[in-house]
Amino acid sequence: MRPFEIGQRSDIGQRSETVRRANLSMIVRELHIRGPLSRSELVALTGLTRSAIRSLIGEFVDAGLATEERAVLQGTPGRPSTLVRLNPDSAVVVALEIAVDSLAAAEVGLGGEVLDLVRVDRPRGHSSVDEIVRDLADLVAGLRAHRPPDEPLIGVGVAIVGVVRRSDGFVSMAPNLGWRDVPLDARLAAALGTTLPIAVANDADLGALAEFRRGAAMGAGDVLFIQGEVGVGGGLIVGGKPLTGAAGYGGEVGHIPVNQNGEACRCGSVGCWETEVGEGALLLRAGHPPGGGRSEVAAVLREAETGSPAALCALDHVGHWLGFGLAGLVNVFNPELVVLGGLFGRIHPFVKRTMEGELDRRALPASRRMIHVVPATLGVDAPLLGAAELAFDPLLEDPAIWLRPRAAFADLATA
Amino acid sequence: MRPFEIGQRSDIGQRSETVRRANLSMIVRELHIRGPLSRSELVALTGLTRSAIRSLIGEFVDAGLATEERAVLQGTPGRPSTLVRLNPDSAVVVALEIAVDSLAAAEVGLGGEVLDLVRVDRPRGHSSVDEIVRDLADLVAGLRAHRPPDEPLIGVGVAIVGVVRRSDGFVSMAPNLGWRDVPLDARLAAALGTTLPIAVANDADLGALAEFRRGAAMGAGDVLFIQGEVGVGGGLIVGGKPLTGAAGYGGEVGHIPVNQNGEACRCGSVGCWETEVGEGALLLRAGHPPGGGRSEVAAVLREAETGSPAALCALDHVGHWLGFGLAGLVNVFNPELVVLGGLFGRIHPFVKRTMEGELDRRALPASRRMIHVVPATLGVDAPLLGAAELAFDPLLEDPAIWLRPRAAFADLATA
Repeated sequence: MRPFEIGQRSDIGQRSETVRRANLSMIVRELHIRGPLSRSELVALTGLTRSAIRSLIGEFVDAGLATEERAVLQGTPGRPSTLVRLNPDSAVVVALEIAVDSLAAAEVGLGGEVLDLVRVDRPRGHSSVDEIVRDLADLVAGLRAHRPPDEPLIGVGVAIVGVVRRSDGFVSMAPNLGWRDVPLDARLAAALGTTLPIAVANDADLGALAEFRRGAAMGAGDVLFIQGEVGVGGGLIVGGKPLTGAAGYGGEVGHIPVNQNGEACRCGSVGCWETEVGEGALLLRAGHPPGGGRSEVAAVLREAETGSPAALCALDHVGHWLGFGLAGLVNVFNPELVVLGGLFGRIHPFVKRTMEGELDRRALPASRRMIHVVPATLGVDAPLLGAAELAFDPLLEDPAIWLRPRAAFADLATA
Repeated sequence: MRPFEIGQRSDIGQRSETVRRANLSMIVRELHIRGPLSRSELVALTGLTRSAIRSLIGEFVDAGLATEERAVLQGTPGRPSTLVRLNPDSAVVVALEIAVDSLAAAEVGLGGEVLDLVRVDRPRGHSSVDEIVRDLADLVAGLRAHRPPDEPLIGVGVAIVGVVRRSDGFVSMAPNLGWRDVPLDARLAAALGTTLPIAVANDADLGALAEFRRGAAMGAGDVLFIQGEVGVGGGLIVGGKPLTGAAGYGGEVGHIPVNQNGEACRCGSVGCWETEVGEGALLLRAGHPPGGGRSEVAAVLREAETGSPAALCALDHVGHWLGFGLAGLVNVFNPELVVLGGLFGRIHPFVKRTMEGELDRRALPASRRMIHVVPATLGVDAPLLGAAELAFDPLLEDPAIWLRPRAAFADLATA
């Protein structure tokens, strides 16, 4: 009796199927992030042979996920290469964002094309879960009304200004909204009337993901993204992968203690980084109402341009503490790039000198020498675009399961 | 003409060779870290089929890297399973450590068996590179004199109390030794008279690696290791992988700024974490000479046991600042485990309460709830054992290249 013969054969089968799926994943990831590519470019990027690329691309084309088209010859010698392009209408995600000042919803197609996007202001302060979930469902219904009813929707991604457990979208804490322990994915599934997978994550984590895939940090391997508004959030890319922590709570840079004699923080602690560099700290020191939002920040920057000592002093304070906190993160993470989003991107020209000086003083020379601090490039929509990326992740991870008919996924309520 | 036919065939060949090597790597990694395992255990741990395991183990046995032996039947029903055991003499690394108070050298066999180890005190303070490299070469010569001359040495790993570029073992800064910009790998290669690969890394990074593979953090995925002596170092495991940062300078937790009104630090900055929690801070506050080392720390702990207010107050200070700094790291990393090494392991019973109280106050509840803070288990040799692991990494990564005769590697000078 040689019972292992069959096992051996099926083992080889199983392994090559694993390899095929990994290769499909590599290709769709490159096309999704970089846009249309020639087969030669895919060979160079993936290390796969030309024949393997051809056969795998064939699978995408057969399933309607990609098209191949002759590229225009641009003065280079040789035959024009065939360009492979993902079809944005072949797999679509719904992205949602719950921010301090606004709610947003978008539909994004495979390859990252924004098919439709709507953002509405919301008053700052606490809101019930019911209210916000209902408002989001209304936004989605509005979007869906303009989109084909049989659109192949594959998932929903949600960015929220709060601390989120990744495994099940459980919002542990969102002090800006007054939320604690909210099973947001389940609440949204009910309100949207969908069985589509819903992935929820922290807004700064998703801002980092978007800047990494499509913004200021494209191609970098170790990135520190910090985003300021009322609160301060962070997202880290470590060795090319988003750091989530053991449960998804990682990246809460706003609550690094930096000043033991500092101000009380909304999290219950004292002297957290965001009490020194958040919007409230800037506005209060500049003599503006601390809950004033983006328009008051703009007013402070105008005053600074005209030389107002109060405004300049407030910006200098924030610049000092930005550098103070960043130095610690740089020493721990040794990133190649620091990306400043939200408030920090807008005030960057005004705080650059003080912040960089503090980095010179406090970051270890070896790590200091190699970092660049740059403003984010995706603007206010970075977390929303990151939510779309989160919703695309299962497809990018294992495209093979999407190469079957996907009618069953198009069940999102069209109200 | 169908030029891709050959490519296609060679592609399949290339892919299955990649898969074979990845599978060999999985198996040798499990055996190296967990010790002898039955084939059934290997099936469960790797997800490979029984027949694939059998064939791959055969390769190790043929190359002399592993042996198979009947396990003793321990009252469980069924036939006794065959145990696969790595042969410690089949691949040996040299591990070196340059610590503040000592130098150490060891030979470690595949599977982690320490074959020989020697540690000698060194006086604190600056030492020339020449001096230390010569002392290490003497230690190695002493070890080699007791070992078989034809031992299959495969590499050298070095732990150093300094900031190290991983790619080439360049020591950017080692303030305890008075070093700056030292090409340590090249200096050691010359002094040891070897062409073996030499990998150099920071001592705390390697302490973390050792605790992760063989100590307090075995099996955990997200770990924060901090190690105190004169300076304070850290090593992070993120998603099961050591965080090195973009160039290998990551993990320098001792230089997180925590107190803007604090003491000057040896790094040139002010108020770094190590100025509040390092050995010097503890000794000075307890009324002992700050450069006194381990014996003075032991004296402080004895005084604390008898209720000395100065000793208790000094420990409380360190406990407070330990919790203060850890809270920030916990909020950023969301680890499941914090491992305290060196000084921090020894003072843990004395600072636990203050430190945990500070964590309660300052770490976000979601992350706080899930962490355990535990002392390290490998003691003073953790960085040295981590250096051995570093030297084994190329073999664990791609065992296939070690399945050939390795006589060429056994060229380390035996003095």
